Amino acid sequence: MKAPFPFSAIVGQDDMKLSLILTAIDPSIGGVLVFGDRGTGKSTAVRALAALLPPILRVEGCPVNAERPEDVPDWAVLETKTVSEAPTPVVDLPLGVTEDRVTGALDIEAALTRGEKAFQPGLLAKANRGYLYIDEVNLLEDHIVDLLLDVAQSGENVVEREGLSIRHAARFVLVGSGNPEEGELRPQLLDRFGLSVEVGSPPDIESRVEVLKRRDAYDRDHAAFMLRWQAEDAAIRERILTGRKALKKLDTPDETLTDVATLCVALGADGLRGELTLLKAARAYAAWRDDTALTRKHVRDVAAMALRHRLRRDPLDEAGSGTRVERVVEEVFA
Amino acid sequence: MKAPFPFSAIVGQDDMKLSLILTAIDPSIGGVLVFGDRGTGKSTAVRALAALLPPILRVEGCPVNAERPEDVPDWAVLETKTVSEAPTPVVDLPLGVTEDRVTGALDIEAALTRGEKAFQPGLLAKANRGYLYIDEVNLLEDHIVDLLLDVAQSGENVVEREGLSIRHAARFVLVGSGNPEEGELRPQLLDRFGLSVEVGSPPDIESRVEVLKRRDAYDRDHAAFMLRWQAEDAAIRERILTGRKALKKLDTPDETLTDVATLCVALGADGLRGELTLLKAARAYAAWRDDTALTRKHVRDVAAMALRHRLRRDPLDEAGSGTRVERVVEEVFA
Amino acid sequence: MKAPFPFSAIVGQDDMKLSLILTAIDPSIGGVLVFGDRGTGKSTAVRALAALLPPILRVEGCPVNAERPEDVPDWAVLETKTVSEAPTPVVDLPLGVTEDRVTGALDIEAALTRGEKAFQPGLLAKANRGYLYIDEVNLLEDHIVDLLLDVAQSGENVVEREGLSIRHAARFVLVGSGNPEEGELRPQLLDRFGLSVEVGSPPDIESRVEVLKRRDAYDRDHAAFMLRWQAEDAAIRERILTGRKALKKLDTPDETLTDVATLCVALGADGLRGELTLLKAARAYAAWRDDTALTRKHVRDVAAMALRHRLRRDPLDEAGSGTRVERVVEEVFA
Amino acid sequence: MKAPFPFSAIVGQDDMKLSLILTAIDPSIGGVLVFGDRGTGKSTAVRALAALLPPILRVEGCPVNAERPEDVPDWAVLETKTVSEAPTPVVDLPLGVTEDRVTGALDIEAALTRGEKAFQPGLLAKANRGYLYIDEVNLLEDHIVDLLLDVAQSGENVVEREGLSIRHAARFVLVGSGNPEEGELRPQLLDRFGLSVEVGSPPDIESRVEVLKRRDAYDRDHAAFMLRWQAEDAAIRERILTGRKALKKLDTPDETLTDVATLCVALGADGLRGELTLLKAARAYAAWRDDTALTRKHVRDVAAMALRHRLRRDPLDEAGSGTRVERVVEEVFA
Amino acid sequence: MKAPFPFSAIVGQDDMKLSLILTAIDPSIGGVLVFGDRGTGKSTAVRALAALLPPILRVEGCPVNAERPEDVPDWAVLETKTVSEAPTPVVDLPLGVTEDRVTGALDIEAALTRGEKAFQPGLLAKANRGYLYIDEVNLLEDHIVDLLLDVAQSGENVVEREGLSIRHAARFVLVGSGNPEEGELRPQLLDRFGLSVEVGSPPDIESRVEVLKRRDAYDRDHAAFMLRWQAEDAAIRERILTGRKALKKLDTPDETLTDVATLCVALGADGLRGELTLLKAARAYAAWRDDTALTRKHVRDVAAMALRHRLRRDPLDEAGSGTRVERVVEEVFA
Amino acid sequence: MKAPFPFSAIVGQDDMKLSLILTAIDPSIGGVLVFGDRGTGKSTAVRALAALLPPILRVEGCPVNAERPEDVPDWAVLETKTVSEAPTPVVDLPLGVTEDRVTGALDIEAALTRGEKAFQPGLLAKANRGYLYIDEVNLLEDHIVDLLLDVAQSGENVVEREGLSIRHAARFVLVGSGNPEEGELRPQLLDRFGLSVEVGSPPDIESRVEVLKRRDAYDRDHAAFMLRWQAEDAAIRERILTGRKALKKLDTPDETLTDVATLCVALGADGLRGELTLLKAARAYAAWRDDTALTRKHVRDVAAMALRHRLRRDPLDEAGSGTRVERVVEEVFA
Repeated sequence: MKAPFPFSAIVGQDDMKLSLILTAIDPSIGGVLVFGDRGTGKSTAVRALAALLPPILRVEGCPVNAERPEDVPDWAVLETKTVSEAPTPVVDLPLGVTEDRVTGALDIEAALTRGEKAFQPGLLAKANRGYLYIDEVNLLEDHIVDLLLDVAQSGENVVEREGLSIRHAARFVLVGSGNPEEGELRPQLLDRFGLSVEVGSPPDIESRVEVLKRRDAYDRDHAAFMLRWQAEDAAIRERILTGRKALKKLDTPDETLTDVATLCVALGADGLRGELTLLKAARAYAAWRDDTALTRKHVRDVAAMALRHRLRRDPLDEAGSGTRVERVVEEVFA
Repeated sequence: MKAPFPFSAIVGQDDMKLSLILTAIDPSIGGVLVFGDRGTGKSTAVRALAALLPPILRVEGCPVNAERPEDVPDWAVLETKTVSEAPTPVVDLPLGVTEDRVTGALDIEAALTRGEKAFQPGLLAKANRGYLYIDEVNLLEDHIVDLLLDVAQSGENVVEREGLSIRHAARFVLVGSGNPEEGELRPQLLDRFGLSVEVGSPPDIESRVEVLKRRDAYDRDHAAFMLRWQAEDAAIRERILTGRKALKKLDTPDETLTDVATLCVALGADGLRGELTLLKAARAYAAWRDDTALTRKHVRDVAAMALRHRLRRDPLDEAGSGTRVERVVEEVFA
Repeated sequence: MKAPFPFSAIVGQDDMKLSLILTAIDPSIGGVLVFGDRGTGKSTAVRALAALLPPILRVEGCPVNAERPEDVPDWAVLETKTVSEAPTPVVDLPLGVTEDRVTGALDIEAALTRGEKAFQPGLLAKANRGYLYIDEVNLLEDHIVDLLLDVAQSGENVVEREGLSIRHAARFVLVGSGNPEEGELRPQLLDRFGLSVEVGSPPDIESRVEVLKRRDAYDRDHAAFMLRWQAEDAAIRERILTGRKALKKLDTPDETLTDVATLCVALGADGLRGELTLLKAARAYAAWRDDTALTRKHVRDVAAMALRHRLRRDPLDEAGSGTRVERVVEEVFA
Repeated sequence: MKAPFPFSAIVGQDDMKLSLILTAIDPSIGGVLVFGDRGTGKSTAVRALAALLPPILRVEGCPVNAERPEDVPDWAVLETKTVSEAPTPVVDLPLGVTEDRVTGALDIEAALTRGEKAFQPGLLAKANRGYLYIDEVNLLEDHIVDLLLDVAQSGENVVEREGLSIRHAARFVLVGSGNPEEGELRPQLLDRFGLSVEVGSPPDIESRVEVLKRRDAYDRDHAAFMLRWQAEDAAIRERILTGRKALKKLDTPDETLTDVATLCVALGADGLRGELTLLKAARAYAAWRDDTALTRKHVRDVAAMALRHRLRRDPLDEAGSGTRVERVVEEVFA
Repeated sequence: MKAPFPFSAIVGQDDMKLSLILTAIDPSIGGVLVFGDRGTGKSTAVRALAALLPPILRVEGCPVNAERPEDVPDWAVLETKTVSEAPTPVVDLPLGVTEDRVTGALDIEAALTRGEKAFQPGLLAKANRGYLYIDEVNLLEDHIVDLLLDVAQSGENVVEREGLSIRHAARFVLVGSGNPEEGELRPQLLDRFGLSVEVGSPPDIESRVEVLKRRDAYDRDHAAFMLRWQAEDAAIRERILTGRKALKKLDTPDETLTDVATLCVALGADGLRGELTLLKAARAYAAWRDDTALTRKHVRDVAAMALRHRLRRDPLDEAGSGTRVERVVEEVFA
Repeated sequence: MKAPFPFSAIVGQDDMKLSLILTAIDPSIGGVLVFGDRGTGKSTAVRALAALLPPILRVEGCPVNAERPEDVPDWAVLETKTVSEAPTPVVDLPLGVTEDRVTGALDIEAALTRGEKAFQPGLLAKANRGYLYIDEVNLLEDHIVDLLLDVAQSGENVVEREGLSIRHAARFVLVGSGNPEEGELRPQLLDRFGLSVEVGSPPDIESRVEVLKRRDAYDRDHAAFMLRWQAEDAAIRERILTGRKALKKLDTPDETLTDVATLCVALGADGLRGELTLLKAARAYAAWRDDTALTRKHVRDVAAMALRHRLRRDPLDEAGSGTRVERVVEEVFA
């Protein structure tokens, strides 16, 4: 298959790119939901990110990508347990996926040929320690979305079906793209995504021509185009790795905690999830910028992407939710 | 998997914590239903309780956690029947659970390989003598909720399916969390939960910062955080065990019975279930406080959690049901 | 499993208790439908009745509880056919029961292991010559209710499915509990129940305290409580047996037939079923009272429970159907 | 199973009894549809008819009740083909019957044990040359009703399913009971029944007491009651046999044909089916009365039962359809 | 099975009879849709046609009725390939037919016993080179109707299911009967039928008496009745065969093409299908009449049956569609 | 099967023919959606195109039509890998196709006979490097349409079902026909088709007679008709091959990119897809015309077919979308 479009060759779309980078630095931020009309390059960006993510250490052949031999589950029969480098897993949820392939299920072959009740792991196992991408989250059946969000939050896949009783680690960043024209998502679901961004087509002819040029070059002269952007992608990869290390050393001053809580109360963003995500996103952002101290500026810059999707709809306020977040940020931090 | 958040480290949420403790002292009080918006820590509290519950005695390997060898069911083939200590079972009902895994079903492996019609017990068997937790009870299919409540009340799981005709003990405390925004539960279902509590985010910045701090510490420095709260959790565990013994010795004066019945009549809480639960909750509360005599004060303090969910909706009274209970308590016990 | 609450320890609820006793004296009266809010002890009463019913004679191991060896069906392979005493069967229809377990079905084990098309009898076979109890008849699927009523009336279970063509005796008293708040039952279904009664919580504090006391004693000091009511339950069992014998000798004067028909015409109760049930209920009542002659008084006393559920709804008459029956009884028998 | 209530012991209900007798004399008249409220004895009458029908000659063990050895279908493997007398088949369509049992289906046992694709005949085969009874035709699923009427009319059961391609004779009289309160039947379906009658409870106390007395005697003193009515039932059976022979010799004068056609045109009864049925019913009626010539009187007397269910609904005419038929008969034959 | 009612004994219904004859002369005209109330003899006519169709030449035992040995499909294993005469196939689509029997499907017996993935042909194969009859096309499920029309038009059955990938010839004339009272057919479906006719009961008493007489004679004295009409049916068969030969020699003058196109444009009958069908029907009609030249008269006479069902509904024109065709014919050809 | 109607014999329909030719020159343009009433020859044109497409080089027997031996997937077991010429694959999606046949599925035969979990490829594999045709895209089930469009765009078929985890190349041109009268397609789906055209019946009698003549000749004198158009079809095939080569050498001046972007912004056609398609279509058009330079004229001529289906509906503008595109083209390029 053709290598994906280079991450750094994407024209504009800074919010989307930043949100993906932040989750690469701190996966515990949770998933990213990308809203936008058709043709705005949502899936291109996610597939591009996959290509620049740093590798992970994992036990070779382990169905849940365990980092250490002792983390390999009982039901995974491996002859040797060698640890080596592997690309960060990026799993695509194809349309028409069945629940058994998501959660894993009874291994039919084992049952039919050997009469054994073995577990065949699903996509949630494959995605452990990586990314799970859903294009057009609106088109997935509700029961599969509920299941994915439940696992994404608990970090554990619990299978109780067909006589199986299995649980295994399933920690991944869930990335979904959605089209606001195809109906709204339930607030409960929105809340479970860490960040959200909105994307659109560039309005100026110049940028659009640039997009067209790059895309055309990618289609017609693939190898040369990939080569041209290789170094820029590598630089981002390097910054992500540096950011991950910086993150551990970054202190969290009490004023920042107060800033975060005050902002959430002012916005009426219920629940702990918003506050915790905002804090983590601000920290990852500071680490990405290679700043050594966490400040109000960091909170301010990522507030919209961390909180926009957690506001209650206000029928008297026609401003978009992103604008409302920014207005309140101005008032609170004035 | 990571150890759950310590019960005693939860900021505020006293009603929720008390209700869980009361059912730990007297499981016959019935289940607990926790109402609250998303992100208010409902599931955190339940998982926390699991970690501090005292152990039980059970026959090793018994699928229904039988206390005595003679209670092991016929269909459970055990080579030896040794009794030993085990943690109180806490069973999680995952989304997408199928009815066969709830009630138990024909053992497919046994059927396919040995042609035997064996019973493979389900989650109801696993939960016997423990807790069964349902996150977002609103998302469970109706027929599974009906089935759970039916078994929770009768204490017995009756399986009549796929040619099986099995019954086994299934006594457990059902704990459910629900979000009032996602639609109401049927009165019949509400009535079958022993207690109900409402939780919300703390309104003051200070508490919110404290919640954020503890949660962040739990995420970033897990081991140290767990150690810090170990002793407080142990103290609660000890009080539960003391309370269980105290409960057996506590007398029930006739005035308390009259208080309980008078209060229920005044509130128009139909049926015996409310009265019996209120009585038991008051007794467990007295035992938890280590009080030696059961008084009107005990009834008064637990009245809201025992009765709130049993009132008929009153379209002319906009007060919340908790407030209505308290108002009537004041009038009746004035 | 714990012995059920004693029948005689039930406080009040005289109508419900009488209706159950009458069907114990003459099972051909048909089923009993118990209406009432949640928590009014509907299921307690039915389970209690089970404990005091007199034993029956049956061929040991017979799947349809045949009284005589020659009544054992062909498809039931028994090595010996010994007749002995056994408790009156009381079968519980659990929620989630599948049609195959109600009517019986192909024996899967026999099919898979021996390639035989054997019949595995269902709950209708088990209930033959006894009671079939459905808690919350409203929650059963329509097609199962239709099937049960059809069999209850014909006394025969006809199975035409999965290549099986079986019929066997299935004579039982159907007892159902229902909650009028959960939607009405179709008139066709109501008509097929012999008797119906309404139950409610006692309105006076004193009775409620008594209920609470007995229930609490039953829960906390089970053995002693059961012993205390043993003799009273035995006395009722004895009266049922005496009543059954008395019933055979009781004459039916023509005036009583005329009374019965006149009452039904006056009430506009269509069809033969009401008249026949009223006649049989009056006779069973006379037998229970040990009266030697059947009189208008007997008809009068059981008229409400035999006819209440057979009236057409009268939109201009807001009185409950029980009250309407009593009013017409007064007019007709003035 | 208890012998059914004697046909001749039914009080009143003359239309219903006559319609059943006419189809016994000439089965090609088609089915009978009995309308009436619950409890009016609809199913009693049909089951009673079964008991007095004359026997048929059939090949022993033939699954389609073939009269001559050469009519036994290929797929029916019989060792010998002896012709003997057997009761007229009366097949009951139980609720919950599955399509495979109606039409016949792949023999699962043969498929599993011998790997053969054999046909296991269904209820349509069993009913060949007899009666098929459906209680509460409203409760049957539409696709099964369509199928039954289709076969009832063509006299042939065509099975194209599960790899089978079978056709066999299935000529039977379809008798259905329905309750007009439970929703109307589609005109297409009504038209396919030959005759229809309406039944109700007798309005006078005297008759009702008589009904009650007979039913009570039947229940309480079964053997004696059956004996008492044996001769009367035998007399009817004899008249049916005589009628069948008389039918063959009865001439059809052209005036009668004109009467029949004129009446149907006047009533606006579309289609040939009404005319043909009316003609056949009039002839069977003449034969039953032992009249030697077919006259206008015969047409007049059976017109309502042959045509009532074929009228288009007339929103301006509130008279029942039976009354409308009679009014037009009066005008046309004035 | 009884021989069908003779085609020539049908009273009136000239349009219906002509349309069936035209498709017998030129099957590429496409199907016939017969509209009419119940009881107007729609299915009688179709079954009657089957009996007079001339025989075809086919390879014995060939599942698709191949004319030449080289046309027998690969998947049909025949030991010898002898060509002989056979009746024109007329296949009945029974109610409740399953999709696997229509298109053909995996041969279950072969799969179970020999583990082979063989194709078992369905009714579409059986109908190749003949007629496929659907009574009450309204009652067929949509997906089966779509499938039939698709195959009827392409002349090929493509099976892509259960791991099979088969295509075989399936050229047949589809004949459907429908009742306009039971809901309309989609325009897309109507368009795919070649011809359509409307039938009704004869309005005059004399004809109705004649219908009744013939039908009664057919029922009561079958053999004699069949004999009486044999010669007339044979004459029609002969004319069909002659017509088929005449058809090949018939020239199509350009004026006729212009007439056909002009008429369709005037009627607003979209698409090519109407024009082509009208042309073919006119030619078949000329051949049937044994006319040697194709003229405007032929187009005029069959215009209604070829175009009636292809008009857009005109809400301002209450005339039936047949009348509208005739009116435009008058104007255009004036 | 009969050879399809020759492409060059189609009267008129220039847009439809051009759009099909452009995708034959550059398949990356994406699919073609043909709108039109019934009978306008939509499917005829597509089937015609299939017959004139140039052959491809492919590994013999390869289930995904791989061009080089190294592209044959692992799961395809081929004994030899010889490359030879084969017709461009044109796959028809029959009505009633099941998802397993579209995407491929577990090979049932292999599973049953050898207990192996082999992959049986579906229609998406067959269509690789060719055309996939859906007649009446409106009649396909939504989940299959979603799946097809998803694969059509990504060029890859990802199968996650029944324990299989397979991905293979599936690059094809999707051609769909639709009828605007049968309900609209979702904007998301429209956007995924590269080009769209509208077809109708010719309005003039002369053309219609010509259509009729050719079609009649094709039906009646097949071989002669095919021969007559052979050379014209070959000429088109040759021009397509020449166009493919010319395409690679064609430069894209920056002005053309600006023209394309400006036009899309002016039309409010969101997203990149429209621009990229318009660019490619213009280039393919230039190549087809054998023009050596890409100019504004090329963009202008194909703008309607590339953009028409991507406009937002404008309720104030009743002009068809094709007209709106042309109007804006006039303004922008004035």
